[in-house]
Amino acid sequence: MPQSWSPTSKLYTLDPDSISFDPDLTGCDVIEHAIEECRRHISLNAGVAKDPDLPEVERIQIQVEDQSCEGYPKMEDSEAYELSVEDNYEILLSADSIWGVVRGLETLSQLVYTSEQNTYLINETTIEDFPRFQHRSLMIDTARHFLSVSVILKIIDAMSWDKFNVLHWHVVDDQSFPYPSRTFPELQEKGAYTPYHMYTQSDVTLILNEARLRGIRVIPEFDTPGHTWSWGQSHPELITPCWGKGLEGGPNVPNFPEHGAEEIVNPMLETTYSFLEELFREIVADFPDEYIHLGMDEVYYACWKSNPNITQWMEEMEFGDYAEVEQYYSNRLINITEELGSKYIIWQDPIDNNVTVDMNTLVTIWKDSKNNQDDPWQMHMEHVAKKGYKMLLSAPWYLNVITYGEDFREYYAIEPTNFTTDPELQALVVGGEACIWAEYLDGTNILSLLWPRASAIAERLWSAKEVNDIEEAKYRLDQQRCRMLRRGIPTKPIMNGYCGDYEWEFDEDHAAGSSASDAVLGHGALLFCALLLSAIAHRFG
Amino acid sequence: MPQSWSPTSKLYTLDPDSISFDPDLTGCDVIEHAIEECRRHISLNAGVAKDPDLPEVERIQIQVEDQSCEGYPKMEDSEAYELSVEDNYEILLSADSIWGVVRGLETLSQLVYTSEQNTYLINETTIEDFPRFQHRSLMIDTARHFLSVSVILKIIDAMSWDKFNVLHWHVVDDQSFPYPSRTFPELQEKGAYTPYHMYTQSDVTLILNEARLRGIRVIPEFDTPGHTWSWGQSHPELITPCWGKGLEGGPNVPNFPEHGAEEIVNPMLETTYSFLEELFREIVADFPDEYIHLGMDEVYYACWKSNPNITQWMEEMEFGDYAEVEQYYSNRLINITEELGSKYIIWQDPIDNNVTVDMNTLVTIWKDSKNNQDDPWQMHMEHVAKKGYKMLLSAPWYLNVITYGEDFREYYAIEPTNFTTDPELQALVVGGEACIWAEYLDGTNILSLLWPRASAIAERLWSAKEVNDIEEAKYRLDQQRCRMLRRGIPTKPIMNGYCGDYEWEFDEDHAAGSSASDAVLGHGALLFCALLLSAIAHRFG
Repeated sequence: MPQSWSPTSKLYTLDPDSISFDPDLTGCDVIEHAIEECRRHISLNAGVAKDPDLPEVERIQIQVEDQSCEGYPKMEDSEAYELSVEDNYEILLSADSIWGVVRGLETLSQLVYTSEQNTYLINETTIEDFPRFQHRSLMIDTARHFLSVSVILKIIDAMSWDKFNVLHWHVVDDQSFPYPSRTFPELQEKGAYTPYHMYTQSDVTLILNEARLRGIRVIPEFDTPGHTWSWGQSHPELITPCWGKGLEGGPNVPNFPEHGAEEIVNPMLETTYSFLEELFREIVADFPDEYIHLGMDEVYYACWKSNPNITQWMEEMEFGDYAEVEQYYSNRLINITEELGSKYIIWQDPIDNNVTVDMNTLVTIWKDSKNNQDDPWQMHMEHVAKKGYKMLLSAPWYLNVITYGEDFREYYAIEPTNFTTDPELQALVVGGEACIWAEYLDGTNILSLLWPRASAIAERLWSAKEVNDIEEAKYRLDQQRCRMLRRGIPTKPIMNGYCGDYEWEFDEDHAAGSSASDAVLGHGALLFCALLLSAIAHRFG
Repeated sequence: MPQSWSPTSKLYTLDPDSISFDPDLTGCDVIEHAIEECRRHISLNAGVAKDPDLPEVERIQIQVEDQSCEGYPKMEDSEAYELSVEDNYEILLSADSIWGVVRGLETLSQLVYTSEQNTYLINETTIEDFPRFQHRSLMIDTARHFLSVSVILKIIDAMSWDKFNVLHWHVVDDQSFPYPSRTFPELQEKGAYTPYHMYTQSDVTLILNEARLRGIRVIPEFDTPGHTWSWGQSHPELITPCWGKGLEGGPNVPNFPEHGAEEIVNPMLETTYSFLEELFREIVADFPDEYIHLGMDEVYYACWKSNPNITQWMEEMEFGDYAEVEQYYSNRLINITEELGSKYIIWQDPIDNNVTVDMNTLVTIWKDSKNNQDDPWQMHMEHVAKKGYKMLLSAPWYLNVITYGEDFREYYAIEPTNFTTDPELQALVVGGEACIWAEYLDGTNILSLLWPRASAIAERLWSAKEVNDIEEAKYRLDQQRCRMLRRGIPTKPIMNGYCGDYEWEFDEDHAAGSSASDAVLGHGALLFCALLLSAIAHRFG
């Protein structure tokens, strides 16, 4: 819901094919892409035309204040826009930045609807809109299960329709290392599940570019010092050997379920930090965002405790407990990151362990009683806020944790500032994040698990605090579900019913019949046809 | 798991393209289809060939005892088969009936695997196999959300890989009536969501034929007397008017949440029974199975109680309570069904209400403490068994009820006879049913919700009682998931990991890259390319 939206009952019509989009900034790929998408999305319903009896909007004027088009979106960039459907047969969209234009055109594509007579309608409308929170993110996990690039691109696409503006890419973990480091290609070669489960440099570039066109930042997470089993496949020296059977048993021995044979980064070796410096130098260079995510969650001390070399080193360093080891590691990594010129996000765990990190750190709250932790997220928010850190809330928004029925109600009901009445502490909340961990999902089910459940969170993060009536929101969510379905995402139903003339796989039914239409085809198929035709042209040309 | 399976370490190879399938019954569409599917499924992995260093199986001999090929599968038909990979370079498959051939060829397609050198392997093997339960069914609901025919056909396909043998089609309900009755076309015209959400007669025929080819019976459910709101859209006279505000308020008045304005079939009118007789005459004629499902669940009495005409009629009929009304309705409908020559299945509710139904009735147990009922399913089974009815168990197998994590463990752990130690009562269990109610699902997510979770239930219903080690079954389930994925069903992951060289949407990635291969394309795309090429040929030819 826009921050301010005043529709009247006065109706206009339009023709998405002929309507003219006139930006005052030309040649900007972001705006051109957004126009193309807006036009395409409006025209998705076949057989709809303009209404001959209504005044026609023939022109969409687009004004953008900051005319810079190069570069990637940043957290502080304005996404505000104003949109009015006015009585001079024009639509006026004005924005501070190109990102506001992207958001405004998405809104415009959602304002146009189809009458029962199959004509395009739009009401006279004035909208002033801006996001409540700067950071509205979705986390995907490509380590527990690999996600194909086409699935990631679909996620990015759908995110933009919900006005999410950050893709947090939890790219590697214990289970696999699909990321293509140029500095250390062996991380992927030995750490990925198979050669089929690897991203290429051009995959990464494609994902960054497609995200930028939609005003979406991409923040990669290279989680250390825990969650690094896959790193050790090529760099065993990085990982602390655990002495699971005491001194007699020697190193690299597990003690389940306390720890495995190798469990966690080895914090005592200088080679660890020179390795991390090289790796993060590449990551910071390759990812344009100001932030990277350093992970730092679930640093279980059991393996460090088992290792006599760590014990001896701690004595030398005069560390009284393992939190000091964690602090040492955190400080070293944060210093590396800062020297590389990057800002950083971490999970809340170091703060819980009384580790002090730099005050610029953005801390993500993921613990909640629903995630098998003792305390509700509000306690965790309060704890971290009182230490003065800026925060993102993700704890109540773990979309992988499924329950039967209308769980979107719970997501929608969350008020991220509802952990204190102190406005100064509330002001530390810079946004929130929907997370979808991949233990039990992959390309087969991630899209229907994400949507429209994530849309409820997106509205919570964009719209005003006062927009909180779930009974009203439910129908907007259902509309957004059907809209996304029409745009090609298998969003799952949230209530009994149907989506007008279009449901998932209707195309296949029609394809099986006599009329093969364009609508049957995905991008891949069209591309293939193009390649085929081009090959034919070469052969016979 | 087969009832008896003795593989040795002796290896053979084969070539799915050249291997000869030699049935002693030729010209039988069921066997020919099963052979084609077996050959196709074995060859799905591109780039695999026979191993030149291993003995090659060149012939699959198929012997079938009962050589009748016409007709549809019946509950008492044998699905037993014996399969042996023998040292004379032949595979011998023998079965009592064509349905056993279908089951055996499915098993054979699962016995062939691929070596690391990309060659086909099969071990010397002897299998004797038959199902533990006769009735192994999956229920789909096309009323809360419409399922496209292509989705239903995919479900039937995947069912056959799990050796399910009954599709229970809960085709209509309160929400919509997508079924195309020829006798009463207005039921669909006014009861379906929209003209897009309707099945045609040829859809029904297609579904029946595709199911038959896979040895799957199709049992339609036309649930009465409750769950009939959509029927009343065209036939309001069928439905009891509720008097929600007492006598002064008049008829057709709701009293939420007790009842709506019209709630349940009107049992007092003879026109009700003549209508049902005409409708079921058509259903029994059109569905070849011996059974139809009469529903009869959730007969809430509140609306009947509110209606003064029902009260007066009960006095005339000397009915002491509403269970007698239910009994009257049940008897009338069962008599109609019997006169039409059909057997029938009902949900357990009439039995719970002390309604006595015919002893031939097959009763499905759906109530469980997990379904918000007070008692565990074992209590319900015992109660119904003691009345001597034959039973199907579905209560613990509601696949629409989702929880996070490895819920297949619970499904697998269910032992349907575990409600008594009395072998006579245990013998009343003729099978079980996985149900997937469609309140929160449709074509977007039903396949990944069904599979591989349904596979755990399928193994429970097919394999011996003693095959119950979930730690072993887990890996079979994961294999079956990957097998189904390769065959085109988006089965969801049940543990961390990957499926070899193939994951969902890998094709789309490859399509976007430089090497467009056949594997990239779906049927629609190929059709489109063919049309395009044909158009080009015309233009430049």
